[in-house]
Amino acid sequence: MTMTPRYLILADGAFGPFTSKTAVGCIRFTPEQVVAVLDTVNAGRTVQDVLGFGGDIPVVASVAEGLTLQPNVLLIGIAPAGGRLPEAWRPVLRAALDSGLHVWSGLHVFIGDDPEFAELALRRNVQIVDVRKPPADLPVSSGRVRDVDATIILTVGSDCNIGKMTTQLAVRAALRDLGVRVAFAGTGQTGIFIDGKGIAVDAVVADFIGGAAERLVLDAAKDADIVLVEGQGSLIHPGFSGVTFGLMHGSLPHALVLCTQPSRKTIRNNDWVSIPSHKALIALHDAVTTPLRYAPTIAIAMNTFDLDDDAARDAIERAMAETRLPATDPVRFDPSPIAEAILAVHEARLAAR
Amino acid sequence: MTMTPRYLILADGAFGPFTSKTAVGCIRFTPEQVVAVLDTVNAGRTVQDVLGFGGDIPVVASVAEGLTLQPNVLLIGIAPAGGRLPEAWRPVLRAALDSGLHVWSGLHVFIGDDPEFAELALRRNVQIVDVRKPPADLPVSSGRVRDVDATIILTVGSDCNIGKMTTQLAVRAALRDLGVRVAFAGTGQTGIFIDGKGIAVDAVVADFIGGAAERLVLDAAKDADIVLVEGQGSLIHPGFSGVTFGLMHGSLPHALVLCTQPSRKTIRNNDWVSIPSHKALIALHDAVTTPLRYAPTIAIAMNTFDLDDDAARDAIERAMAETRLPATDPVRFDPSPIAEAILAVHEARLAAR
Repeated sequence: MTMTPRYLILADGAFGPFTSKTAVGCIRFTPEQVVAVLDTVNAGRTVQDVLGFGGDIPVVASVAEGLTLQPNVLLIGIAPAGGRLPEAWRPVLRAALDSGLHVWSGLHVFIGDDPEFAELALRRNVQIVDVRKPPADLPVSSGRVRDVDATIILTVGSDCNIGKMTTQLAVRAALRDLGVRVAFAGTGQTGIFIDGKGIAVDAVVADFIGGAAERLVLDAAKDADIVLVEGQGSLIHPGFSGVTFGLMHGSLPHALVLCTQPSRKTIRNNDWVSIPSHKALIALHDAVTTPLRYAPTIAIAMNTFDLDDDAARDAIERAMAETRLPATDPVRFDPSPIAEAILAVHEARLAAR
Repeated sequence: MTMTPRYLILADGAFGPFTSKTAVGCIRFTPEQVVAVLDTVNAGRTVQDVLGFGGDIPVVASVAEGLTLQPNVLLIGIAPAGGRLPEAWRPVLRAALDSGLHVWSGLHVFIGDDPEFAELALRRNVQIVDVRKPPADLPVSSGRVRDVDATIILTVGSDCNIGKMTTQLAVRAALRDLGVRVAFAGTGQTGIFIDGKGIAVDAVVADFIGGAAERLVLDAAKDADIVLVEGQGSLIHPGFSGVTFGLMHGSLPHALVLCTQPSRKTIRNNDWVSIPSHKALIALHDAVTTPLRYAPTIAIAMNTFDLDDDAARDAIERAMAETRLPATDPVRFDPSPIAEAILAVHEARLAAR
């Protein structure tokens, strides 16, 4: 997965701002990699018409129509109900493979394990990439990233689905604008599609969570001075905290960016878990990073999408007053305060060498 | 895996106190389930002769000889170098299956995926149980164990391989002697063989670590007033901390027993990680359990096998003085102080109802 993708995104019947997270993420962050969206419902419109952003990327009705725009990958941008492969998708996948498109999927069911598609891909010499299928040769992590010169930054969060990937991508753009050599280490399916590489750490065998994170950082650090690791889950999430913790100890960040949502008071789907204050969350992260490599929390990234402008600015002010750290909504307002805090950590490390 | 096993343990060429951890664990804790050990090197001796404990369990030279003692399972009690199945084992496994024995294995390579053995097992109507193969239908954990009446106790540790399973098994025996309805929830291969059931949580897909722990506790609590969950790894282990943390949030213990080894100052194979004081370890565990369900550390289980009696007693005294908690080596001395601390937690919960 190192070529530059030109995606035809399959989102048939479900293309919209809240129904196609992967499609929307790719369009938001790498619109230049998206040649078209396949959705028979909205065919003939532009992505801008449907999402409110995305410009004049067309929505097409078929693989054949999409092919005129010269994609090289059919990207599955929605998740089917029930996790199985809908029968209706089979002709679409067949047409894509038969036309010489690679197929990239983040589904739990592996497209490459389907005998018909596997045979067709082999015959047409294209690849089916199931990004949730982990590499076979992952190591157990053992602190190898301590040898890396790059400054490693991990996003952590008060909950799942709160902005850990989005923050890193917004910060990457801000750092690039400043001329910094910066790399993103994708750890979830959407982040992997956007960046064209990565490992879905939630899909590896539990013993190798840290090893996956370690490999991602070692790879990303080859060509970068700052590595932005996409965080997963939350240390207080009842279901996913093991992934969160393993990712932390495998990547051994130099500093953390804490992602929160002011309106969220309890963990989603687990309302018995209260989300504590920023200060308490920071203290918890301090406690768990200290035994291996202390990683201070250096900024707060706030997801204020459900607040009006005044309420959003007010929430950010309160977080700054509580923590004495820079805070911002990196999508709605400006990622610069976070980017600057990261640069300060990097420069302090350089100065100390 | 709910029948009572009668093991013929395969440890050919490697039967000894330090070379066959699984075999030794089964013999130490459930000698009544072991009918013989298969090892051509020591054939004709007793287990007592080889290990210094284990009584008159015979060491035999072949499956045929072992069959005279009426086993129902061939248990693979050693790990091959390199993780592959040695060619020399194939005739042994073939003979076992062909004689109607089930085969239980904790290897990373799955015996049941071998076409010859799978076919033979089907034909002879016996099961090949690869205990590291996780159940297919694990949920994401979400605090379901909060509905359980049983008192849940988890062992945690300063490192891997330090006594988390052994402590729970010694405590189980002590609680049984007191007439308590107690269950062990096995989370690693040796614990699973000893108990005849369990899930190897380090082998599940990362998203389901907590879900595996949750299911184990829910099952164990059906017939028990106290559930002893076998801990894994350590919160400060660079490689395995994700499993440790997920297990903690999936099982939501009411209290923790901290396992340490006085002579160990750094994490094994990771000497860049210093093991902090008992007090600091307890504070770390306090910090991470508090957001979901606070679990106080109530006792210290110390592994003093490499100290003489005076040094062992001295280390235990120092831990007690440092923490104000009961401490003991539950194998060398007496598990009662730990069992009593657990009973006190259980009785306090009953009184508060």
